[in-house]
Amino acid sequence: MTTTPIPTPAATPPDILRCAYMDLVVTDLAASREFYVDILGLVVTEESDTEIYLRSFEEFIHHNLVLRQGPVAAVSAFAFRVRAPLDVDLAEAYYRELGCRTERRANGFVKGIGDSVRVEDPLGFPYEFFYDTRHVERLAWRYDLQGPGALVRLDHFNQVTPDVGLGRGYLEDLGFRVTEDIQDEDGVTYAAWLRRKDTVHDTALTGGNGPRMHHIAFSTHEKHNIIYICDKLGALRKSDLIERGPGRHGVSNAFYLYLRDPDGHRVEIYTQDYYTGDPDNPVVTWDVHDNQRRDWWGNPVVPSWYTDASLVLDLDGNPQPVIERTQSSELAVTVGADGFSYTRKGEDMPEYKLGHQL
Amino acid sequence: MTTTPIPTPAATPPDILRCAYMDLVVTDLAASREFYVDILGLVVTEESDTEIYLRSFEEFIHHNLVLRQGPVAAVSAFAFRVRAPLDVDLAEAYYRELGCRTERRANGFVKGIGDSVRVEDPLGFPYEFFYDTRHVERLAWRYDLQGPGALVRLDHFNQVTPDVGLGRGYLEDLGFRVTEDIQDEDGVTYAAWLRRKDTVHDTALTGGNGPRMHHIAFSTHEKHNIIYICDKLGALRKSDLIERGPGRHGVSNAFYLYLRDPDGHRVEIYTQDYYTGDPDNPVVTWDVHDNQRRDWWGNPVVPSWYTDASLVLDLDGNPQPVIERTQSSELAVTVGADGFSYTRKGEDMPEYKLGHQL
Amino acid sequence: MTTTPIPTPAATPPDILRCAYMDLVVTDLAASREFYVDILGLVVTEESDTEIYLRSFEEFIHHNLVLRQGPVAAVSAFAFRVRAPLDVDLAEAYYRELGCRTERRANGFVKGIGDSVRVEDPLGFPYEFFYDTRHVERLAWRYDLQGPGALVRLDHFNQVTPDVGLGRGYLEDLGFRVTEDIQDEDGVTYAAWLRRKDTVHDTALTGGNGPRMHHIAFSTHEKHNIIYICDKLGALRKSDLIERGPGRHGVSNAFYLYLRDPDGHRVEIYTQDYYTGDPDNPVVTWDVHDNQRRDWWGNPVVPSWYTDASLVLDLDGNPQPVIERTQSSELAVTVGADGFSYTRKGEDMPEYKLGHQL
Amino acid sequence: MTTTPIPTPAATPPDILRCAYMDLVVTDLAASREFYVDILGLVVTEESDTEIYLRSFEEFIHHNLVLRQGPVAAVSAFAFRVRAPLDVDLAEAYYRELGCRTERRANGFVKGIGDSVRVEDPLGFPYEFFYDTRHVERLAWRYDLQGPGALVRLDHFNQVTPDVGLGRGYLEDLGFRVTEDIQDEDGVTYAAWLRRKDTVHDTALTGGNGPRMHHIAFSTHEKHNIIYICDKLGALRKSDLIERGPGRHGVSNAFYLYLRDPDGHRVEIYTQDYYTGDPDNPVVTWDVHDNQRRDWWGNPVVPSWYTDASLVLDLDGNPQPVIERTQSSELAVTVGADGFSYTRKGEDMPEYKLGHQL
Repeated sequence: MTTTPIPTPAATPPDILRCAYMDLVVTDLAASREFYVDILGLVVTEESDTEIYLRSFEEFIHHNLVLRQGPVAAVSAFAFRVRAPLDVDLAEAYYRELGCRTERRANGFVKGIGDSVRVEDPLGFPYEFFYDTRHVERLAWRYDLQGPGALVRLDHFNQVTPDVGLGRGYLEDLGFRVTEDIQDEDGVTYAAWLRRKDTVHDTALTGGNGPRMHHIAFSTHEKHNIIYICDKLGALRKSDLIERGPGRHGVSNAFYLYLRDPDGHRVEIYTQDYYTGDPDNPVVTWDVHDNQRRDWWGNPVVPSWYTDASLVLDLDGNPQPVIERTQSSELAVTVGADGFSYTRKGEDMPEYKLGHQL
Repeated sequence: MTTTPIPTPAATPPDILRCAYMDLVVTDLAASREFYVDILGLVVTEESDTEIYLRSFEEFIHHNLVLRQGPVAAVSAFAFRVRAPLDVDLAEAYYRELGCRTERRANGFVKGIGDSVRVEDPLGFPYEFFYDTRHVERLAWRYDLQGPGALVRLDHFNQVTPDVGLGRGYLEDLGFRVTEDIQDEDGVTYAAWLRRKDTVHDTALTGGNGPRMHHIAFSTHEKHNIIYICDKLGALRKSDLIERGPGRHGVSNAFYLYLRDPDGHRVEIYTQDYYTGDPDNPVVTWDVHDNQRRDWWGNPVVPSWYTDASLVLDLDGNPQPVIERTQSSELAVTVGADGFSYTRKGEDMPEYKLGHQL
Repeated sequence: MTTTPIPTPAATPPDILRCAYMDLVVTDLAASREFYVDILGLVVTEESDTEIYLRSFEEFIHHNLVLRQGPVAAVSAFAFRVRAPLDVDLAEAYYRELGCRTERRANGFVKGIGDSVRVEDPLGFPYEFFYDTRHVERLAWRYDLQGPGALVRLDHFNQVTPDVGLGRGYLEDLGFRVTEDIQDEDGVTYAAWLRRKDTVHDTALTGGNGPRMHHIAFSTHEKHNIIYICDKLGALRKSDLIERGPGRHGVSNAFYLYLRDPDGHRVEIYTQDYYTGDPDNPVVTWDVHDNQRRDWWGNPVVPSWYTDASLVLDLDGNPQPVIERTQSSELAVTVGADGFSYTRKGEDMPEYKLGHQL
Repeated sequence: MTTTPIPTPAATPPDILRCAYMDLVVTDLAASREFYVDILGLVVTEESDTEIYLRSFEEFIHHNLVLRQGPVAAVSAFAFRVRAPLDVDLAEAYYRELGCRTERRANGFVKGIGDSVRVEDPLGFPYEFFYDTRHVERLAWRYDLQGPGALVRLDHFNQVTPDVGLGRGYLEDLGFRVTEDIQDEDGVTYAAWLRRKDTVHDTALTGGNGPRMHHIAFSTHEKHNIIYICDKLGALRKSDLIERGPGRHGVSNAFYLYLRDPDGHRVEIYTQDYYTGDPDNPVVTWDVHDNQRRDWWGNPVVPSWYTDASLVLDLDGNPQPVIERTQSSELAVTVGADGFSYTRKGEDMPEYKLGHQL
């Protein structure tokens, strides 16, 4: 991990298609299964006593999430699919030039995925790149199986890193494009959203102590699907799993909900951002003091959303040390001096500064 | 059954609260269970080898539908709940004065219902009136049990009768109030909607050969719930069960879908009509030639919707003879002279005659 | 106003149909017009320099809300429609027997309403009863006029009163029926919901310093209509008008949003409670410590929602004095001892006590 | 235009991003403006007496539709945006190698678009390729401007051509990828869907007499937005503009509605297909006899949907001659021998042949 500038490799970066799956260590597989399968309704592709492979209803690759029993709740890999088998080679060479540790496995690190490379990236995150995967049934038409809160796609990852500007440059070199960010008047970047597929992001960088995983996000078709998930959690007397929302994001314009799984891993349910696939797609910069940036309705962000995140593992399966963010924190910047931990509506708010382009 | 004027009894009519349940004979209980429970998701209150008691998610009385194995697909009773036990006595006396056959059972005709009276009404329909019922859990908050097409209320019945004007007068005497109707320029009434509770109807009269049951209607909360039912039927490769819709009614302004159960009994799924509880609630009269009356979007009504209906039984369980409608039929009036069985958009249509009050 | 038991009159109470309109004093009519007409989209029936008459899209009586320019933001009348002209006489006699001040006007207190009586009720609220009203076009079918957040009905009022038990007894005598309430283990009532029409309430009593008006509530058809209102407020950079929500109520099971108008009058947008019209409709009692009672998703209630409310006027137009609630307050009971003004998820929460019947 | 095999050029095809706009000739600009602006709510970027430039709410390029007053209702251009300025050169060279007529304009053919090339493609369609465009405000966050049926994106074109197999090969050479198609047991292709962006299509080929334009499609966020458009047309007494739907497509799994503009140009409103961006995205082949392929609910396709389409223009502005399809027609194949022009539910239907992969 580095906090010094990350050089731009001479190597050609791999052609990344999209975020594809997360390899997630959980400490109580049965409890996690209840959360992801019984409550959220993700589809089980296959499972054993120690692993569960899950996918969303419109997915045709083997899985979007691996739950793996382990001693420490953490992320084993943020996995991206690349356009062709050759791109796995490109990824391996790219990170080797960066001086990163890499590991290549012809038969994959997990079931359903073939030739892959995992790396400890310059920010300390375990990234995986693969092309080869087993196809499974796309359940898009299987309305008989889809519940009222059906998760239809993996949408994005979100990573916590101390220096967003640094991380952003590295990901842009890797081929990602920034769609939106949050800055202050001094040019400090608090968060950035980066995409490969034609949505607002495949991953985002959130400024904070890192490397840590902020959340993984699945999409629904409509807003009522997300509301249903809240209603169901209420019915199950598990509303404490709702951390934040539902609400409308300013950034991304999507409708959202944040949940916490039994290990505290954060899961976003997300719907309806916009097309970003043109190379000159306008970047939207939000002022960190704009209280509609995180919630378009001005509802406060709970402090835990800023402070809590999951550990990430190195290639040996050990947690990466967490480096403190030294730049100003969004939580500190956007709450009052009284230490009151919510941004309250109508109080302590600077004049609105419309950071976006409207 | 009579086609001569029905006298207004001197007796006080019972104070009817609402349509409450239908007692329905089906010829293959397992097939009906698949339709009403597995596909539509109605809640089973109790069941045996010969009967299934079903309710909607917001109901607290014992059931809204009884499926009863029998030799002929037909309706045994259209059951209405009255305000107080005494109203059962009033109902019995009222129909006796009308000269109708009545049968009183202190322990009810079906499980979960106490003291009741069933009558063969002047139009030939088997009506039941009861107050006493067993309370069951109202599952309104049980989102964990509610599927994406959850049926939350019984909304109304719809009955086919040869002379709508005659039947309407009888039901108005009984305490119903007309909210909307369809007429032509000669004053012939093709259909009328009548209510006790504060919605557009508890029952409707559709002009045609009768007495027959046109449909029973359940409500969902939102339109997407109805769309989901169609999507699920498609996924199950049972889309042939969709007879008409989904669409927006002109009459009632509700969003609708018509299905046919395994015996051909018609079931409507319905949502979002309007409040009608004021005594001077404006009656909306539609012109039979207005092609938006039955579908606000002008989509054609399939002929079977006009011609098909279910038999009704007398108190001995024998089908009531069906009397032909002698007034002009809505099907004949609203389709072209070429015998083409759909009303086609933009063809053979008179100038719009806005029958309603807009 | 009294805090001693309110006697049950020997007089027959009027047969109340429903809450019908609120007569509301605002201090800046232009600002209020922007809020209620430009933002919320209520329909203007008629208006002058000093008054605006507004209705919802499915209404056929003259108005559901009168905005009246005045010196002090307050409620002039909570108006209920009765079943027949004679019920106005009954209302007058009923309140006279209670010793309340009454005023009868054959031509009404406001435009569009005829013979009416206004009273200063035993709790200090200005209640009006009327039958006679001018019919206007019911715009239910006018989708060309309805925006994405269309308010289709007036749903209910909500009143703040120091002693909910006392007020509830008075309203039950008047003919209202309790559908839900919030109590604690000592039998203190914190709030009660009372209905005449077939929904969860026409008015509610919220325990607090009173008499004051807590809110007036309008209905939409679907949840997305409410979400749109939030989205629009964000777009107008008026998200500070959102006080609480959107969310799902535990009580009533409705989806909700609370706004504050330019004078601070609270407006709820509400959709999808359940049918309550049977006389034995089950009453749902919630435990005040159940953190899903006010928000089914356990999201905290902002303190202002408990503390702020609007003044009400006597028949001379002077604000009624506000009497302090001496029973324990819901705000105090449900927040931590640290004075932290939000109930935080997962902290300081007793074990869930399921007060409702599930 | 050719019906003989279209050679694969040696030239590198342009890197097409997406369908971008249609240049459409209308015969009554005021009537078209009412349809596209007043009814459908598309955003006017700029307009003159002879041209109107329209865009969807999430668009940032100058327009998605040009309405141009002219003598014959027809399509002047199907315009695609390419990744870079150089791709316009590539497009020009590519079509020149194909022997197609091309016209290059450095300042564009329409306002808001710069350097472009238009071609008469091998199928007879006027295709345009451009990169340079004027950016305009993306109105994604402007909920204050978005109506209940807001069109948020241009989704796709649909073209009628006699030989779908031939056309598909040509478009695959150009870089499009097939996502779904309809075939029969003899291998005849009735329609094919082809994409560049990550959705089911940027354009589709429908078998029939051509070259003609079948429709242009705009997206909404949710299904209720589409239902609203129907409701509004009903309110305006313009329901005859609804040609087909709303419904759920089998192909694409999207929710749809087809309208006809004042010239008969067909417009689809569309929402919620699935991600297709992976190179091995599974192709779904539907059996032409599967009555859920065009409507997942089995509702009949109106004959006009198969037979009617708009003329397309050559680069001189003259209508291209229409060549008859000689392969079997989907209309003929899927309706009964009695000439009955609707596919009726449950009649004349072969056993379902599930052409798709479920």
